[in-house]
Amino acid sequence: MTIHDYILKYVDPNFIGELPFSVTTKSFSKNEVIINYGDIENQIYFLKSGIVQVSIAHHDEEKILDFFFTNHFFCSYTSLLKQTPSDVKLVALSNCEVEIIDHLEITQLHKTSLLTNQLGRVLNGKLYLRKVKREKEFLVKSAFERYNDLLKENPEFINQIPLNKIAKYLGILPESLSRIRKQIVS
Amino acid sequence: MTIHDYILKYVDPNFIGELPFSVTTKSFSKNEVIINYGDIENQIYFLKSGIVQVSIAHHDEEKILDFFFTNHFFCSYTSLLKQTPSDVKLVALSNCEVEIIDHLEITQLHKTSLLTNQLGRVLNGKLYLRKVKREKEFLVKSAFERYNDLLKENPEFINQIPLNKIAKYLGILPESLSRIRKQIVS
Repeated sequence: MTIHDYILKYVDPNFIGELPFSVTTKSFSKNEVIINYGDIENQIYFLKSGIVQVSIAHHDEEKILDFFFTNHFFCSYTSLLKQTPSDVKLVALSNCEVEIIDHLEITQLHKTSLLTNQLGRVLNGKLYLRKVKREKEFLVKSAFERYNDLLKENPEFINQIPLNKIAKYLGILPESLSRIRKQIVS
Repeated sequence: MTIHDYILKYVDPNFIGELPFSVTTKSFSKNEVIINYGDIENQIYFLKSGIVQVSIAHHDEEKILDFFFTNHFFCSYTSLLKQTPSDVKLVALSNCEVEIIDHLEITQLHKTSLLTNQLGRVLNGKLYLRKVKREKEFLVKSAFERYNDLLKENPEFINQIPLNKIAKYLGILPESLSRIRKQIVS
């Protein structure tokens, strides 16, 4: 999927013509850092293919906040909106192809472009829904249920993520994840 | 603040004239349920004054997901967007004055109204930022630090919320919160 396809699917099924903003493309190799701690975010990325990890540092440990999969928008959001140094790191967990929108251009277009605002509204809403879902799941679901959901929702991706990273994302020890996986297989 | 003021402050400082959507007002008494579990959300609320609690049920226990304070938009967001029964309950923690926008009217306006989309983009973005902030704080800050932040950010409201609810929101026992409060006073 491209940003153009995303707009047809989620924003305006009758959209024809050119996008009001420019789009560039870029590739990241597996393990390449997209945004590091301290960087200022100036771009919005659409993941055409691949997996991206969002982590935050705490003392000497890295905690995993999120994974983004193919066909989703991502960026260091707080840094982008507030133009402050990023407190998260974005890393390509596999080879990634992205489309990139420039934040400065988009900010100008927000004053006049209906489509740009429609896209912003829809994608901010989707990001918020995902976060609320994750928060609720932490409160009311067991690690077993949360791992099962992850498997069901992203079957094609989950096998590409190292187990220790999945455990971190679920907030459990790698040994607990191994036990859960054995339970599921048996 | 009203929705009109919110638009002037966060969306378009040059906005003049009438809002493209209708706004009604309503009052809720302290402890009144705004949205219950199972309700379908059809409205977006702007909190002119008061405090609203968002909770989720888990077995026989209620977990507190969020508090909304004066000058913020709120609703049962997942229910609104997906038109599914709400899995959260919204309760007025104090007497509340709200302005209400109708979801159906807004959905129609999303097709054509620049201002309505600008407002949606901005408020979805703000909701997402808040959630990301809370998630990060859970991972990297102690309960002491999180309580201190809550005090600093909402000094005028926090004294109106019962301590057992604040403890639930922070994910700690009421006794731990009492210890933290003693530390701060001393």
